[in-house]
Order: sequence, then C-alpha cells, then structure tokens
Amino acid sequence: MLIARFTAGENPRYGVLDEESDELVVLKDDPIYGDLSTTGERVKVDEVRLLSPVIPRSKIIGIGRNYAAHAAEMGNEVPDEPVVFLKPNTSVIGPGDPIVLPPYSREVHHEAELAVVISRMCKYVPVEKADDVIFGYTAANDVTARDKQRSDVQWTRAKAFDTSCPLGPYLAVDVDVSDVAVRARVDGELRQDGRTGQLVRSVPELVAYVSSIFTLLPGDVILTGTPAGVGPIDAGQRVEVEVEGIGTLANPVVRRD
Amino acid sequence: MLIARFTAGENPRYGVLDEESDELVVLKDDPIYGDLSTTGERVKVDEVRLLSPVIPRSKIIGIGRNYAAHAAEMGNEVPDEPVVFLKPNTSVIGPGDPIVLPPYSREVHHEAELAVVISRMCKYVPVEKADDVIFGYTAANDVTARDKQRSDVQWTRAKAFDTSCPLGPYLAVDVDVSDVAVRARVDGELRQDGRTGQLVRSVPELVAYVSSIFTLLPGDVILTGTPAGVGPIDAGQRVEVEVEGIGTLANPVVRRD
Repeated sequence: MLIARFTAGENPRYGVLDEESDELVVLKDDPIYGDLSTTGERVKVDEVRLLSPVIPRSKIIGIGRNYAAHAAEMGNEVPDEPVVFLKPNTSVIGPGDPIVLPPYSREVHHEAELAVVISRMCKYVPVEKADDVIFGYTAANDVTARDKQRSDVQWTRAKAFDTSCPLGPYLAVDVDVSDVAVRARVDGELRQDGRTGQLVRSVPELVAYVSSIFTLLPGDVILTGTPAGVGPIDAGQRVEVEVEGIGTLANPVVRRD
Repeated sequence: MLIARFTAGENPRYGVLDEESDELVVLKDDPIYGDLSTTGERVKVDEVRLLSPVIPRSKIIGIGRNYAAHAAEMGNEVPDEPVVFLKPNTSVIGPGDPIVLPPYSREVHHEAELAVVISRMCKYVPVEKADDVIFGYTAANDVTARDKQRSDVQWTRAKAFDTSCPLGPYLAVDVDVSDVAVRARVDGELRQDGRTGQLVRSVPELVAYVSSIFTLLPGDVILTGTPAGVGPIDAGQRVEVEVEGIGTLANPVVRRD
C-alpha cells in the first residue's frame, strides 16, 4: 500500500493510492498517529501536489558507510560501528521541491537511499522486533555538501542544511525491502544502482542500533546509507531517486546565491 | 523576567516568577507562540515540578570549541569556523530529572553552557538583527560521552543520547548575557567557572552563523559552548549548572545498565 501526503491548495491531507485509477483515497487523519479510515473523497493524483510523506517531530537519523562499495569509493573502511548523524526536520522537502545548493558549497552530491519511518515511541528495540516499530518506507536523497564533509569536524553544514533531505513520493507499508533496487539518476542518466541486499547493516539491525542511543518517536526517519556512484549535482539539473516498490522522487536543483 | 514551564500533576503550563513571593503567575499559553497574558492564578514555585522551559519542535544546535581555554584543555585549536552539531529534542530533560549514563560509555562529562532560545522562524539573520529572533536564555548541560566523542566519526552517540540535554530552570527574557558567569558544580564542588565574555564567537555571531545553515524555528535552542574545566560525572553524583541571572539547573546522575 502506498500512502501520500498532499495538498490541493488547502492544508495537507493524506491519501492511499489506488493504482488502477491513479486516485488518492483521502484519509481522515495522519496515518502514523491515527488509523486508515477514509473520508469517502477521492482525488486524482495528477491534480494535487505531493508533499514529503512525513515531517519528523523529532529527528532524521542518517547512517554513513553502510554499503561497502560506497565506503570504498570515498576512501573509507566499513566501520566497526555504524556512523550515525542527524538531519533536522527543517531539511525535509517533498517531491518536485527544489534542492537549493548552499552558498558555502561548490560540491554538492546526491545520495540515493531507502528511508525507514518509525510508527511508535520505542527504545532498545531488539533486532527481531524491529518490524513492530516500522510504519513504512520511502525514498530519500541524503544531499551532501561533499567539500564541507571533508573540511568540517562535524557533518552539520554538509548534511543538515535546508532542502538537504528530499523524501517521497510515497510511504510504502507492508512491503519487503530486504532486497530492492536503490537508484539515482541525474538528468535521466543512471548514477547509482544498488540493492538493499548489499546493506552492511540491515534495516532491523539499524533500528536496534539507533534505538540504543535515543528514544525513537512516531514519524522519526532513519536513512539507511547510500550505494556506490555518488556524484555532483548542479543548478539546472534534475535528480531522481528511485526505490523499487516505492516510486521515484524527483527534485530540480537550483542555486540562489 | 524569568519564565518557568511546570506541572502540578496536570498538563504542563507556563508561569512568570514573582521573585518577591516565590510564586509563579500562570500564563494562558506557551509564551514563545502566544503572548504573556495571565490566567489570574498563582502557584507556589516550591509546590510544583519545574520542567525544561522549552522542548524544541525542530532542533538543538550545539557549538564546539567556543571558549579558547576549553579548546586548549581538549588539545584542540580554536577552529576557523564554529564546530556545529545537533542534539535531538529527545535528549532534553528538565531541572531535577536524572541524567542517565548511556550503557556504552564509561566516561561522561558535564559541560555547563548558556543556551539561547529562538522566538521566530528566521534564516540568514544579520549579526546586528540577532536580538530580534531571540526569545530568551536558559542554562544547559551539554552532557557528553567523552570516550565516544574521541572514538566515533560523528558525535551522535557522544552528545545526542536521551537525557544528554538538561535545560532550565528558567527562561530569562530581557537580560544582558554578554558577560555573565557560567559555572558547573559536582556535589557542590566548583568545576567550571567561566564567563560568556570569553566566548570566541558571541551570541549574535552564533545566531548569524547557524541561521546561514538552516532555518531556525520558534523554540529552537543554540548551545553556546562550554568553558574550561569539563570533567567526569558518575552515578550517585549531583551536577549543577549555574548561569548568572538565570539560576541553577541541578540534575542527579544515575546508571541503569
């Protein structure tokens, strides 16, 4: 099942995609906090603007170096412990929203990723119980100012700036993401082409690990790391992240400075 | 003026401290989002439980190495650019709440700091306009797992764990914090004794810098860095952070693993 957050000009609402009719069946509430009861209304998906399917109330947790081939292309070893960083909710944008290149960087990279959305408050989740706290999955672009990642002590300027976390287009629930394709294209050209089966730490392992650091809240997002093939994006280009079974998240790239 | 967030068993409320009577004049709304109109009720401050005066909806922004003597004691230079890191809202606790030492660390340090609370959405704030976006100030303890700060690539395990951000006891508005004392005591013994006049980057400079990375939202908190004298805290101890003009934030330290 694919769930969208959308607007047709009014306040954001949620809807379940009916893939046969390309319509969204409108939900009464945010499905993470409520249930899936519907208002009875249906809207054409091509007549609304899709938004990020979730805006975290607490945090987006990034994981670095979680595909061996990507760690290698960056000149790094796969670490003994996952590399964990934070992105704030102010970094989130939705499908079609522009990625605004930060004025302080001249080398911004795409990073296609599978994103995990948490369903309920939890801490110290055992690996075998991880599915119980996962609401669903979406596609993410962990946009990174690579020059600042190299030069700064911490990755905040590199990875936490406004528009550095495109999410969408849908939140997929009841799907098996243990071995799905994760791809990035820039202006239609394939740049990243990995599979979640290559994750150094699996989704359940990541949920267990990060929930041993902090309490996870409903709507928190875990980015699971990016496969090999990261590279620059520049103003005027269009970057797409595709996660098999979830859809394609496309964003134009702009520079405003 | 000193503002508290408190509970007497029911939902949290806000109140302005009347220092003559030691009473809180109860406010109708969260003063960051509303105004300072009162309900007419007054409660004795020693009959309520004070809570963290703010829970950020977006982020807590930490600044590293912002006192030269502290940078030196850690073996670091004062950096050319501020070192910026993030703590999530799940790290926040209030006065009297226990700091729970994370099971993965055997070396947890106190870091006494002045904290800045943002009043409204803003980006690219010029230094000379910073006061316009500051709601007030409180005291913070940027509790740090020093062993993990040394060993990990990023400081997330070191600085973002649950209970790593005690805030309080009051939110001080209309105060001059350009040269106030910032102290830490452990079991009554003075450990840190600095002044904000020693900040490498001033509060207005920090607001300008961090607002060039991301949009600040009302209730976002900026931790301004810690003076020299950081050191270990252990289970059974009591740590106090005092910021002149704001009050003393005291927390017991516990270990649960």
